[in-house]
Amino acid sequence: MKRPVITLLTDFGLADHYVAAMKGVILGITPEAELIDITHEITPYAIAEAAYTLAQTWKYFPEGTTHVAVVDPGVGSSRRAVAAEVGTHCFVAPDNGILSMVLESARDAKIHEISNFQYFRQPVSSTFHGRDVFAPVAAHLAKGLAIAKLGGPVSDLVPGYFAKPTRLGNSHWAGTVLKIDRFGNIITNLEWDDFRDVAEFPFRIKLGSRIISHCHANYAAAPAGQPFALKGSSGYVEVSINQEHAASTLHAVPGMSLELVLTRPKSTIQPRST
Amino acid sequence: MKRPVITLLTDFGLADHYVAAMKGVILGITPEAELIDITHEITPYAIAEAAYTLAQTWKYFPEGTTHVAVVDPGVGSSRRAVAAEVGTHCFVAPDNGILSMVLESARDAKIHEISNFQYFRQPVSSTFHGRDVFAPVAAHLAKGLAIAKLGGPVSDLVPGYFAKPTRLGNSHWAGTVLKIDRFGNIITNLEWDDFRDVAEFPFRIKLGSRIISHCHANYAAAPAGQPFALKGSSGYVEVSINQEHAASTLHAVPGMSLELVLTRPKSTIQPRST
Amino acid sequence: MKRPVITLLTDFGLADHYVAAMKGVILGITPEAELIDITHEITPYAIAEAAYTLAQTWKYFPEGTTHVAVVDPGVGSSRRAVAAEVGTHCFVAPDNGILSMVLESARDAKIHEISNFQYFRQPVSSTFHGRDVFAPVAAHLAKGLAIAKLGGPVSDLVPGYFAKPTRLGNSHWAGTVLKIDRFGNIITNLEWDDFRDVAEFPFRIKLGSRIISHCHANYAAAPAGQPFALKGSSGYVEVSINQEHAASTLHAVPGMSLELVLTRPKSTIQPRST
Repeated sequence: MKRPVITLLTDFGLADHYVAAMKGVILGITPEAELIDITHEITPYAIAEAAYTLAQTWKYFPEGTTHVAVVDPGVGSSRRAVAAEVGTHCFVAPDNGILSMVLESARDAKIHEISNFQYFRQPVSSTFHGRDVFAPVAAHLAKGLAIAKLGGPVSDLVPGYFAKPTRLGNSHWAGTVLKIDRFGNIITNLEWDDFRDVAEFPFRIKLGSRIISHCHANYAAAPAGQPFALKGSSGYVEVSINQEHAASTLHAVPGMSLELVLTRPKSTIQPRST
Repeated sequence: MKRPVITLLTDFGLADHYVAAMKGVILGITPEAELIDITHEITPYAIAEAAYTLAQTWKYFPEGTTHVAVVDPGVGSSRRAVAAEVGTHCFVAPDNGILSMVLESARDAKIHEISNFQYFRQPVSSTFHGRDVFAPVAAHLAKGLAIAKLGGPVSDLVPGYFAKPTRLGNSHWAGTVLKIDRFGNIITNLEWDDFRDVAEFPFRIKLGSRIISHCHANYAAAPAGQPFALKGSSGYVEVSINQEHAASTLHAVPGMSLELVLTRPKSTIQPRST
Repeated sequence: MKRPVITLLTDFGLADHYVAAMKGVILGITPEAELIDITHEITPYAIAEAAYTLAQTWKYFPEGTTHVAVVDPGVGSSRRAVAAEVGTHCFVAPDNGILSMVLESARDAKIHEISNFQYFRQPVSSTFHGRDVFAPVAAHLAKGLAIAKLGGPVSDLVPGYFAKPTRLGNSHWAGTVLKIDRFGNIITNLEWDDFRDVAEFPFRIKLGSRIISHCHANYAAAPAGQPFALKGSSGYVEVSINQEHAASTLHAVPGMSLELVLTRPKSTIQPRST
């Protein structure tokens, strides 16, 4: 028997009963579901962090996976709930930007409002739609429900607010810090494929009061204590220090701005991201 | 093939190997089990917190689920181990009050001692009954073992110590804080159905040096910075602040006392919980 | 249908997307796998801690389980990746000592290099072999791939660096602290079976400036505040305090040295571990 995969991503943490209540509801509807946690440790209310994490993860899951993403400061208010179909994957989430990084690269996405309460758990609380709306709807989608059954099509999703690098001069770019990971790696919004010059030509990244001008292929190749750029596993330029928490050392936090100066003579760089 | 669900709730944390050892033992006995973590981040030895969390979660799981709850400061001593059957759900736990909130609303519970060592892992350690007693017993129950096979019936369970609201005056009640969740919501022991007057009539909740006198239907409806009461998803009156950690701001901790004054003229309120 | 069990142990934490990406990759190759987390909260880069945790856990899992262990400060460098077969269990990990405690008691282990890139996810990143090498290889092993298909046999594994107790005098031993668990129990490298005299004869453990000279069978048997030795569930001598964080109270940390003096007259103790 095929077991449909359902992933869960929330800011609920693992100490409370909220995630387990969602899983119980799902298993009551779709007992054969395979439940995989993406994370439940998104910073409370941090929609951008959730959007990044979801975008980095969903594509590694098998065809037909259903993804539930709930970071939902507007729960119980008039904010919409939506379902999206991207290829064979389905997503359910509040309409607050959390799906924006998944959808920005999805040309064929179908998006529907979640308004058909026959797929909700009753009674629906005002404060826990994870349990009462998103979990049961995901369970039904994983069983094969078409997203069009959930409500009307949506074409005006709440946009995300994810900065793209901007050009300050000929070879001069402004970017931001997207994410700090557990190891202290500083993940920037500079896509590696656009800025891979850093691996071959002199460059300077200015981050706060620090200048990073070295690049290495992996962590172990860097001398102790030296901040350096590398191609991160997520496809972005990262700033790291070998076996040291770079973000603490460099005082970097998500959202912080940075500058990149490239020096290839007669640069012909045409970043895709402008 | 039907996969029996087994939930796990402990104070073991996720950094050590204890939870995984329990799961390994279960899968060795019942390979088809579906293992779901409720939480392993109960404050060490905090039986009341565990009792609340279990009571909030088990009812969302499918018929036939087995629940293992191990917060066990008395492990290895003469404290009993017990199994309880509530409807189609089974519970295994030390007899120390951890099942009390589940059982207080269960009229038809059957409770047996766990003393039949043929269902234990051998040798049984003195310090880790989660692995050697509770995990294997749960695995056997999930395969269909009747709880009566585990030992004799029990009628003198260790009681819980969960305060109910008490009446101080005509419309004046004393309650306590049951739980602080990750978002800082302050969950009280005032059951919403008994005190729903707070949604319609003037009231005052005194919590430490602060007075709460507003009520909103959801978090987003409240102005920034204003502590307010709402109907929590667990069915209790909660005190929250929109996108702010109310417990930190209001210096609330589990077990803290509070007072509620209702003001409906000629109150006819008859809380069920007295 | 039999579901092959795959356990995961890393220092990736649960807040980032790294563990979920590994799980997605595994389920894409072996959809029927049962994924069990051992822990992802190994202290970053702490190979010895990971080795201890893996050694304490794998033996509780069913025959045929595959274990993935990734604490990998050398990722992307020339360090090898290896697979080991111990009885019916398989292990995949970087060759950096993480398997050493599992292998020290395994006489019949077969070890092969992981170099056959047809079982890797392509392209292989320089910084995330958990996702690109170890997860897909584990998924193939769980489906029945023979480890000899992964690469040539290995006979020169990087050794572990786990101190064994050393004899300082007739009944005088030096040991170290292996691990502090969530409850503050101080797990030493003194194997209980070698030093069980502490349960029956006078002894002294010197740990920093403190002397421990009591032994109890379980935590609850010890008076409040008294540090004592007991037989831990892992088979080592532990130092604990009933419902108190012994490591904080006694200022103990992993790697700290300790001394044990036994006093049985005409000691005939022959620890196996020398």
